[in-house]
Amino acid sequence: MLSSPAELVKSMLAGQRLALARLISKVENRDRDLAEIMRILYQHTGHAQVIGITGPPGAGKSTLVDRLAAQYRVAGMKVAIVAVDPSSPFSGGAILGDRIRMQQHSGDPGVFIRSLGTRGKHGGLSHASKEVVMVLDAAGFDIILVETAGVGQTELDVLRLAQSVIVVLVPESGDSIQVMKAGLMEIADLFVVNKSDRPEADKLVRELITMVSMSPHDEHSWMNPVMKTEAVRDSGVKELVEAIGSHQDYLTRTGKRTVKLREFLKNEVFDILVERLQHSVEGMFRSSSGEDILEKLIRRELDPYEAARWMSGS
Amino acid sequence: MLSSPAELVKSMLAGQRLALARLISKVENRDRDLAEIMRILYQHTGHAQVIGITGPPGAGKSTLVDRLAAQYRVAGMKVAIVAVDPSSPFSGGAILGDRIRMQQHSGDPGVFIRSLGTRGKHGGLSHASKEVVMVLDAAGFDIILVETAGVGQTELDVLRLAQSVIVVLVPESGDSIQVMKAGLMEIADLFVVNKSDRPEADKLVRELITMVSMSPHDEHSWMNPVMKTEAVRDSGVKELVEAIGSHQDYLTRTGKRTVKLREFLKNEVFDILVERLQHSVEGMFRSSSGEDILEKLIRRELDPYEAARWMSGS
Repeated sequence: MLSSPAELVKSMLAGQRLALARLISKVENRDRDLAEIMRILYQHTGHAQVIGITGPPGAGKSTLVDRLAAQYRVAGMKVAIVAVDPSSPFSGGAILGDRIRMQQHSGDPGVFIRSLGTRGKHGGLSHASKEVVMVLDAAGFDIILVETAGVGQTELDVLRLAQSVIVVLVPESGDSIQVMKAGLMEIADLFVVNKSDRPEADKLVRELITMVSMSPHDEHSWMNPVMKTEAVRDSGVKELVEAIGSHQDYLTRTGKRTVKLREFLKNEVFDILVERLQHSVEGMFRSSSGEDILEKLIRRELDPYEAARWMSGS
Repeated sequence: MLSSPAELVKSMLAGQRLALARLISKVENRDRDLAEIMRILYQHTGHAQVIGITGPPGAGKSTLVDRLAAQYRVAGMKVAIVAVDPSSPFSGGAILGDRIRMQQHSGDPGVFIRSLGTRGKHGGLSHASKEVVMVLDAAGFDIILVETAGVGQTELDVLRLAQSVIVVLVPESGDSIQVMKAGLMEIADLFVVNKSDRPEADKLVRELITMVSMSPHDEHSWMNPVMKTEAVRDSGVKELVEAIGSHQDYLTRTGKRTVKLREFLKNEVFDILVERLQHSVEGMFRSSSGEDILEKLIRRELDPYEAARWMSGS
């Protein structure tokens, strides 16, 4: 099983599921072959539509993601689902249920499902998630659905890897002021009011439409559509797929796709450098001179900014 | 008003509130004098007890923090309250209500209150929060209460700056399994069941005690106490202050205070280096050779790991 990175990538590009799973594990575990893997992979990326899905707990995100996947499968597209759950920073485990999903799509080689939990600090999860998406892109998935729970900063970082971001709300998930507070307005490309059979659904739809119309825009701006779905009954999902398609067309037509890609790549390069810095700082603090620095910091004979200057050798 | 960093720090050390407020603003805004300010300040730090308070929305954290502050004031201690709210990553504003609080403690020069919102990514908020706490420590506050809402990764990062962390729960805030899931078990030093007059309070207390007793420990371990409070009636707050005192004594007696300080300082040095890296990477991407790199990345003639290697000049 000791395949080289090049062999693993080759097998993955040939469609071998086991090679794909092993590559993703290597990305998650920040394997020492990581840089080499990503270097070989990178030229094969750039084809997938990456769609982020977020919203409060209980909004029905997982069901909606499953229905979206089913719609894309009907259209003959290969679909990957990545569920990112940063709410468990210590266990390293992902809570969102792979297993339940596996059953539904089991036996369909056109669907790949993976959950990611948190590793480390300083953007560790969003960095790993981004690289997992790049692996899936290279593997030839046409659609990559990235589901994230909650609206914390890590979740928002994760969503920056998506080209189109869907914010799913339910009538009882609170007023639209909450949406603005959580910064979702700035990151959303499409709003979905799920469980739209419930009372107050139309009120929420109206509030969201008002919010969208009040946000700064000109004639070239994308105006977030507000869609109604009942994911459990598969209602409104086809329309949502069409709206996502419109947003993807908008990105291409206006050149915003490249703008997003540039930001994505800048962040990726920065994340790589931060990770490298983390290793080198950890190494230095384990050395005897690093230990010395730390003792001086504790005795307050040296301050952290001076220590940082020493660490960076300048 | 163009005081030098040294003059500002001198005024702050002499007890001038305006100088303190200006220094904190400089930390928040990542002012270019920041490094110099922290260098001058650092030797004056190390005296404050830093206490973190977290828990789900509606647990009554703010009221409890106010009551704690009042208790410490009775004991003649100077108290600073820092409310950190990362839930608003785009506005840069802090939601937790300064103003309401200001009224309660207005006219008391022994209480200082400040709210912090999110700036930037990559641990920006936790880094700024940490340095604000260092400024308050140098300013001579005996007690620094750091209140954070929610249990996301940023909030947990922020809490790492505290020596004693209080997790506040209410009977209706859900079962203890949720607490474990959120990683709070690992970060908590004291549990508080607030609104303890409500039904189910004793059940939650028992569950928490069971959880604490089941966590791995030996005879030298700190066993998280589970305290009952009714903050609105000021009930149980005095006992909580005593329990915090016991934890602070435990940290000193066992040498864990220094262990925590070491981790704090390592992270502070790392955060400084990350921030410096961010500036240098942003600068490089604005240069013509950086622009060139980006174009090659977009055309996939270069991969991000190779680009990172070039950026770091190795």
